Amino acid sequence: MKTKNNAALTPPMGWNSYDYYNVGVNEKQVRENALYMAENLKQFGWEYIVIDAQWSDPNALSLVPESQYVPFTHLCLDEYSRQIPDPNRFPSSAGGKGFKPLSDYIHSLGLKFGIHIMRGIPRFCAHNHTPVLSKKKITADKIANPFSVSKWNGDMYGIDMSKEGSQDYYDSIFALYAEWGVDFVKVDDICNTNMYPAVPYSAEKEIEAIAKAIKNSGRQMVLSLSPGPAVIEKAWHLKKYANMWRITDDFWDEWRLLKAMFERCEVWQAHTGEGCWPDCDMLPLGKIGWGFKNERTTGFTSEEQKTMISLWCIFRSPLMIGAELTKLDDFTKSLLTNSEVLELEKNCKNSEQIFRNEESCAWKSFSLDGKKTYTALFNLGEKEAEISVKTDELKLESGKSYTLRDLWKGADIKKTAAGQEISVLLPPHGCALFSLS
Amino acid sequence: MKTKNNAALTPPMGWNSYDYYNVGVNEKQVRENALYMAENLKQFGWEYIVIDAQWSDPNALSLVPESQYVPFTHLCLDEYSRQIPDPNRFPSSAGGKGFKPLSDYIHSLGLKFGIHIMRGIPRFCAHNHTPVLSKKKITADKIANPFSVSKWNGDMYGIDMSKEGSQDYYDSIFALYAEWGVDFVKVDDICNTNMYPAVPYSAEKEIEAIAKAIKNSGRQMVLSLSPGPAVIEKAWHLKKYANMWRITDDFWDEWRLLKAMFERCEVWQAHTGEGCWPDCDMLPLGKIGWGFKNERTTGFTSEEQKTMISLWCIFRSPLMIGAELTKLDDFTKSLLTNSEVLELEKNCKNSEQIFRNEESCAWKSFSLDGKKTYTALFNLGEKEAEISVKTDELKLESGKSYTLRDLWKGADIKKTAAGQEISVLLPPHGCALFSLS
Amino acid sequence: MKTKNNAALTPPMGWNSYDYYNVGVNEKQVRENALYMAENLKQFGWEYIVIDAQWSDPNALSLVPESQYVPFTHLCLDEYSRQIPDPNRFPSSAGGKGFKPLSDYIHSLGLKFGIHIMRGIPRFCAHNHTPVLSKKKITADKIANPFSVSKWNGDMYGIDMSKEGSQDYYDSIFALYAEWGVDFVKVDDICNTNMYPAVPYSAEKEIEAIAKAIKNSGRQMVLSLSPGPAVIEKAWHLKKYANMWRITDDFWDEWRLLKAMFERCEVWQAHTGEGCWPDCDMLPLGKIGWGFKNERTTGFTSEEQKTMISLWCIFRSPLMIGAELTKLDDFTKSLLTNSEVLELEKNCKNSEQIFRNEESCAWKSFSLDGKKTYTALFNLGEKEAEISVKTDELKLESGKSYTLRDLWKGADIKKTAAGQEISVLLPPHGCALFSLS
Amino acid sequence: MKTKNNAALTPPMGWNSYDYYNVGVNEKQVRENALYMAENLKQFGWEYIVIDAQWSDPNALSLVPESQYVPFTHLCLDEYSRQIPDPNRFPSSAGGKGFKPLSDYIHSLGLKFGIHIMRGIPRFCAHNHTPVLSKKKITADKIANPFSVSKWNGDMYGIDMSKEGSQDYYDSIFALYAEWGVDFVKVDDICNTNMYPAVPYSAEKEIEAIAKAIKNSGRQMVLSLSPGPAVIEKAWHLKKYANMWRITDDFWDEWRLLKAMFERCEVWQAHTGEGCWPDCDMLPLGKIGWGFKNERTTGFTSEEQKTMISLWCIFRSPLMIGAELTKLDDFTKSLLTNSEVLELEKNCKNSEQIFRNEESCAWKSFSLDGKKTYTALFNLGEKEAEISVKTDELKLESGKSYTLRDLWKGADIKKTAAGQEISVLLPPHGCALFSLS
Repeated sequence: MKTKNNAALTPPMGWNSYDYYNVGVNEKQVRENALYMAENLKQFGWEYIVIDAQWSDPNALSLVPESQYVPFTHLCLDEYSRQIPDPNRFPSSAGGKGFKPLSDYIHSLGLKFGIHIMRGIPRFCAHNHTPVLSKKKITADKIANPFSVSKWNGDMYGIDMSKEGSQDYYDSIFALYAEWGVDFVKVDDICNTNMYPAVPYSAEKEIEAIAKAIKNSGRQMVLSLSPGPAVIEKAWHLKKYANMWRITDDFWDEWRLLKAMFERCEVWQAHTGEGCWPDCDMLPLGKIGWGFKNERTTGFTSEEQKTMISLWCIFRSPLMIGAELTKLDDFTKSLLTNSEVLELEKNCKNSEQIFRNEESCAWKSFSLDGKKTYTALFNLGEKEAEISVKTDELKLESGKSYTLRDLWKGADIKKTAAGQEISVLLPPHGCALFSLS
Repeated sequence: MKTKNNAALTPPMGWNSYDYYNVGVNEKQVRENALYMAENLKQFGWEYIVIDAQWSDPNALSLVPESQYVPFTHLCLDEYSRQIPDPNRFPSSAGGKGFKPLSDYIHSLGLKFGIHIMRGIPRFCAHNHTPVLSKKKITADKIANPFSVSKWNGDMYGIDMSKEGSQDYYDSIFALYAEWGVDFVKVDDICNTNMYPAVPYSAEKEIEAIAKAIKNSGRQMVLSLSPGPAVIEKAWHLKKYANMWRITDDFWDEWRLLKAMFERCEVWQAHTGEGCWPDCDMLPLGKIGWGFKNERTTGFTSEEQKTMISLWCIFRSPLMIGAELTKLDDFTKSLLTNSEVLELEKNCKNSEQIFRNEESCAWKSFSLDGKKTYTALFNLGEKEAEISVKTDELKLESGKSYTLRDLWKGADIKKTAAGQEISVLLPPHGCALFSLS
Repeated sequence: MKTKNNAALTPPMGWNSYDYYNVGVNEKQVRENALYMAENLKQFGWEYIVIDAQWSDPNALSLVPESQYVPFTHLCLDEYSRQIPDPNRFPSSAGGKGFKPLSDYIHSLGLKFGIHIMRGIPRFCAHNHTPVLSKKKITADKIANPFSVSKWNGDMYGIDMSKEGSQDYYDSIFALYAEWGVDFVKVDDICNTNMYPAVPYSAEKEIEAIAKAIKNSGRQMVLSLSPGPAVIEKAWHLKKYANMWRITDDFWDEWRLLKAMFERCEVWQAHTGEGCWPDCDMLPLGKIGWGFKNERTTGFTSEEQKTMISLWCIFRSPLMIGAELTKLDDFTKSLLTNSEVLELEKNCKNSEQIFRNEESCAWKSFSLDGKKTYTALFNLGEKEAEISVKTDELKLESGKSYTLRDLWKGADIKKTAAGQEISVLLPPHGCALFSLS
Repeated sequence: MKTKNNAALTPPMGWNSYDYYNVGVNEKQVRENALYMAENLKQFGWEYIVIDAQWSDPNALSLVPESQYVPFTHLCLDEYSRQIPDPNRFPSSAGGKGFKPLSDYIHSLGLKFGIHIMRGIPRFCAHNHTPVLSKKKITADKIANPFSVSKWNGDMYGIDMSKEGSQDYYDSIFALYAEWGVDFVKVDDICNTNMYPAVPYSAEKEIEAIAKAIKNSGRQMVLSLSPGPAVIEKAWHLKKYANMWRITDDFWDEWRLLKAMFERCEVWQAHTGEGCWPDCDMLPLGKIGWGFKNERTTGFTSEEQKTMISLWCIFRSPLMIGAELTKLDDFTKSLLTNSEVLELEKNCKNSEQIFRNEESCAWKSFSLDGKKTYTALFNLGEKEAEISVKTDELKLESGKSYTLRDLWKGADIKKTAAGQEISVLLPPHGCALFSLS
């Protein structure tokens, strides 16, 4: 498939406020994280700063930990039923300026700016018949679908795309985002509308409408769809309209979730590349959980963190850091700034699983020029184990000698050749990432 | 199980506005039907006049036939988030009098008065934080559940019974209904909340709350639950809290639906009696469909109509006439005023299916004094057929002679005795109903 | 429903070899258990001695614990494709005498004799085209259904009842059982054919065929159907053709299974009586597990055992002891010989659950003469708790005074009257059983 | 993914006996069809002659049309539990020569030889404990799984690959097929074991075993898996072990099945190439149905036949002719010998759906050298319609002029250029196939 647009020629890399701030990040915190990224991570390819859910809700976080969302909260809205930032949390947005000032700041750092939205139109607007920006002079109740509701957040109704003026609403919000300078939009409750197990892809028409609205806005924006698990039968549709989509439900710092991701990567491996990035979700490492009243250092061991980064990179998932950046420790930072590892994320092709079972897994990938072969070996079991891959799986040229390099150690290990075996002793949940050149 | 209350010692018999008027009946029409019932049907046991859905919606019917309900309509409400009748359609309700004047009229005719409600609280109220009548000074948003929505009607949110004050709302509306003189409440979207196939009985706590609210109101009211199909695993709970509950989805004048009812009656037959009446839904006979822009005489043949009445009566389903009463033809009227047939509905016990297959079915029942045995024979096939039942299925006393009487013909047929067979030639979809005494 | 036959006017009570011997009991063991029953339990109503599965398999138990059944074992068969006892395990059966000698012995003790069979015809017979006893001179392959297989035992194919001669095979085996003097047949893989989740009641026609074969045999036999969970929608059919049927999957000595039985009893309570006994499965108490290479004393606490017996008795489940009787300890024996408790099992009516939640449950029942009311109170929680029932739930006559008697303690507790509350402090998983008279 | 082997570098093209002969083709018929292919079709790329199911069953077809398969038939077997051809139907196989003589004949024509098998081992062998060719001296009962049965054919049990010697059986049958000179094996009941909806890919280990057995045989054989629908989540596994796999259930000459194939091709399009060919099933055109007692000319219109061939070719499904070749009419022959159309099947890359809805669909593909672009336009609706595709979907070089050629008409139509639209008026169910060069 040709690249649908130039929004995400390589998998997006950045930071998202959710894992640390839950739905309650404020402007100061966003700016601090952006500054940290610009000064410390940008040179390694990190560039997106994404504000997650509820930036228009003045009551966000008020019920945590009993409830993540505030039922029937009154969101900040403009005169056209569009959500605008809560000026208390985002002071620069006051006076109708929206996210433009914040976006300008982020751009001034050489970074890109992203926001989260929920599919649809605020329920409050539908029930109060508020206007929509449209030449057809419609009101919210004319396009909202009272039965299209999310499983976890009660703010919005899905839009009935068969109704007159429905495209106008999506056009109107993406026109606003374009004015604000938004580069990345994470649209939620759209990839798997998991309220309805029988029709998990029920928001198909809204995906098309949003892709069209982005095009109509005249501004390039990465379209990221949530939540997962995305429906593999719909891979063609996702690739046609979106840049990235979540392949699992929310990912957190638990080994069982990380192990399960290997199965999902197996399923989705044929669909990466050319502007399309099946998404393994944020990286819950470093300091996370503050906004959930559960601030902690990631529950992943250091071996598991390397396993996570290695899988995400060789599979070419987008990389979104969940940690509060200003609290980044040296070890975590070292994971996020290993250029040799990130090279897989950015410049590889033909990634593919070699084998997978309950105890182990291996992947391979190739540099764009074909001169380097990569292989990742994973110990998925609970005991230390020797994990091996035969080099004839790696398309090596027979007769040639290769230097085997350990990317996490940053050291050449030995010479090897086609027909031999690459083998490594790995701790439980551990991983090794090699290049052969 | 003991009778939970005295609200429905026999299966309720009456008229419901839905089949003819859809959701748009008005006061004049209700009064005319009540008057007809008082003058023509009351002496046969018919007594309830029930106003079906949307009596508080000023826009009801405005989108028919494209849409049965008006999305985001503004219902008529009082200051405590309670629905009140639309005064345009129910003029006597103006000035805060509610259904009291209409109810008084119906009572003056010697009849009883019923209304339909949807489970929950208006969505509009939740989004606009309107007050609830409660000493706890709560507002609608504090008790509404934003994820508990009906599959077909967007007016209401279910109530989260774990929230403080939630019982107060149900108490407040049933207190109002008690003031109005309501005798029968059909609560909808509660028996099978079919939005969620995995948890069809998700409104269990609201059923308990409503039963309690009726008790708290101090007025006896029949509690009727819709829609079906009721979940047979929950029979005990239904019997403990309700008087009647729908055992199928909406029933209309199609043979396939009537034939399917035989299977449902088989499933539910052990659960009738003592104030509990599994409900086969309204009788779509006579003139129906006007409010659906499809006014017509019932699509059932006369044979099918007798089959329907016979099954409903021997199973002891509630009987709710769907026809516009003032347009009742003589044949339909004859079906509804056959005292010998209605005797099964009112005064029988131990009803039970004898056999059932794709082609035929038979039932039996017994008079309360045990002196009369009834049997119904049904031809469910597409050809004329001889349908038989062995009298040893009927607990007849051996050696005794019995008079076999055809209840639809109102004529004694012959003498018979235990050990013989009762056999009758029936047209397709036809039925015979006999007593032996 | 009238009693379909006189095979089980009260719930059957007896012993089944499975819980202790798995599928490998032998004749000596059966005789010892029968003798123990005759001498110690018979006077309390215990009367059935049931040999469970695989009595015709010479290799039974040979693969335990790796495998319960022996794939493709060669069963002992007669010339008409009928299973006969393995003469090594049942020496008295040698020479074609079948179970007649053993049955005679059991009858001589004043007890009744039962066997287990799997639905269908041996697969070996179908593949080798062996004869069936039939005037139609058919062979096994003509009536076997190659797709009707059990989920756990590979011995048999279901019979295709649409094939000519199919009834003859069932007639031929039940004629043999009648010759042997069998009083009770537990037919397995028939109540819920759980190989096929979409059609759990797929053996419906075989149930009818077996009921007919029993009738044709001329001998009264209790028809017991396994495994569960029985399908509640089919209650009418089960009551028409069988005497008892399992309402859960296999029951063992684990609290979660015992707790789950309360939900099942709620579902099935309307279907007990008149020869029909929804079956909670064997009582895994005393010494069990030997044939599973896991001999042990039941894992139930003494409180849980009383809870189990109390629920089984007030619900009126059949009672089949799983313990090896010759190893019965005094406590277990006391549970099985409490006449006041067993009176509920044998002579009660109108049993019904009063309430049930995660923490507690109560039931009531009434003596046949209506003079005694029973109530069982259960603590289903993990903490000691006061469990109460209001006496107005118990249909007591107002103004009258009642003696409250604790049936497990065998002691009168106090006087009580309508309008009061019966309350008892119960340990976790504990129970109290009271009569009021 | 690299090509797993060289068995199917392009999608296999050939003839299969099923659509015309059902399960009963004989040697003479096979030879006649092979001769026809060699003389008329070989030069267009057609090369496989495949004998479908039941070649070892002496009773095949004897129950048609009542039953396609004969329950408990006695298959022709060798001394190692392996199926051999029925010598009555395949005379040259007599004396233990198997399919070798027939295979030799087919090879002598310059064609390749294929057979159908069912996964597993004959049930008869398991029940009669017959030997397996293995150094471990095992018998069939030791490796057969009594619960692994097909949904439609009762001959076989699946093999339990965890049992010792299980690989030996598959090795033994593929060694035999290698001796016979088999080039193509269609393994049935393995791709979707649709007996068990919850685990449709339950034969995963047998797929691996068969792939290994082919490798162990030392002979290159195409591995074709049936029936469908293949499970898209298992695409990686299918590509690793098989050459082709069915993506739908059986395909016949009905428009609804053909229309449904468009959705399946959408789902599977990312998985074609490099020796892997998702399979749309046989082409039911020409004379078909004789062995089903329903001989007929295909029910597809000529437009539908072109649509079918066009979709199969641009998607690159294997092509297996279902027609009796000796009765091929000129029109059908013209469809099968259009070199320009078949060029897509054989030498294209990057095939991809452009759009699809209920009314229309378009695909594109590219010649291996990148110089030609192909597009197929389909009218899926019931009315004549103009179907269009924008050339900017086709990666044309801007500024360049292209010759648009109609491949079915074999005629150049016009010049076109990037930025224009290709549009064609198509009859219902019709199609056009264009090249641009």
